[in-house]
Amino acid sequence: MIQGLTNRINLLCSPTADAWIQQAINNLDVILLDHSHCERKAAGVAINMMFRYPSYNMLVRQLTAIAQEELEHFELVNQWLDRKGIPLAPLNSPPYGASLKALIRHQEPERLLDSLLISALIEARSHERLGLLGQYCPEPDLARFYRSLMVSEARHYGMYWLLADNYFPREVVAARLEELAQAESEILSTLYHEPRIHS
Amino acid sequence: MIQGLTNRINLLCSPTADAWIQQAINNLDVILLDHSHCERKAAGVAINMMFRYPSYNMLVRQLTAIAQEELEHFELVNQWLDRKGIPLAPLNSPPYGASLKALIRHQEPERLLDSLLISALIEARSHERLGLLGQYCPEPDLARFYRSLMVSEARHYGMYWLLADNYFPREVVAARLEELAQAESEILSTLYHEPRIHS
Repeated sequence: MIQGLTNRINLLCSPTADAWIQQAINNLDVILLDHSHCERKAAGVAINMMFRYPSYNMLVRQLTAIAQEELEHFELVNQWLDRKGIPLAPLNSPPYGASLKALIRHQEPERLLDSLLISALIEARSHERLGLLGQYCPEPDLARFYRSLMVSEARHYGMYWLLADNYFPREVVAARLEELAQAESEILSTLYHEPRIHS
Repeated sequence: MIQGLTNRINLLCSPTADAWIQQAINNLDVILLDHSHCERKAAGVAINMMFRYPSYNMLVRQLTAIAQEELEHFELVNQWLDRKGIPLAPLNSPPYGASLKALIRHQEPERLLDSLLISALIEARSHERLGLLGQYCPEPDLARFYRSLMVSEARHYGMYWLLADNYFPREVVAARLEELAQAESEILSTLYHEPRIHS
């Protein structure tokens, strides 16, 4: 059943392993709850970045649009949780986010570049994994829902990359993206024991 | 010109003084820039509260809607800044927000109650002041814009109050609201020397 995973998403260094898909489709409820947390976190990250760079017009305007869409998705995922009778609840996070955040350099302008590229990678990975859920989720309605979110996730990683490209020379962006993409794939090379969007 | 300010907004203890209106209409550009910051901060506050209470379904759903609207307004205010050629820029904050935040008790559930009521008061004050700008701003288009935002601000303070009323006994809400509303008016009784929405 699980085949054809060699389609590589732009930006990502390695595709998601079959083990993650098995874990995810065996734990659809937890994945849905974690997805809700991911959407809220993504909105929070975009807003925090706007706080840090209040005079970067392009960044502020693009991140406003991203944060709005993340909140829309957050609400849509929460409606799915409602429909399935899954109560909102806290969930501990897999190491993914914190490990990536630890790679952000502290000095500007490197901090901005790294923040943008890490957000781009997270969105690219979300896009890839929602696509896999859209393909392999055994509940047709839920699978359709996952597919419906994919377009926005792709747009988001494109926007983060474009912001990086706007504020930094393209070769600087490309070199750092390669390093961070390798690190991102390395972090996911060991499946986290609890089912998560980024386990 | 400045009259009829005795219309008291629900929740607020004292109406805004004439001195604020004079300061604001003499500094419309700074007020517009500060307004942009206020909308972003309001979205940030709503999202932070969702992070703190991830399993409070009604709170999460209502604050999602509020955060979405704050981001819409943020974008609309930024479009006004664009149109007027005012660049996005950081602005130091008046003491208003920090002084109110200092009143939030640290223990739960008091922390939740105070957070909701302080957000309700800030929204109520914003509603009142945007209304004053809608009334006295000498630029008709901008005045119309301020009036167009007022309805949402009123809905927002209503939603924060309803959340408080949902999670706490009504008499507890009423007693604490009275204390906080008095403190809020007291903070604004001395006009801050720099023009701000909450100076």
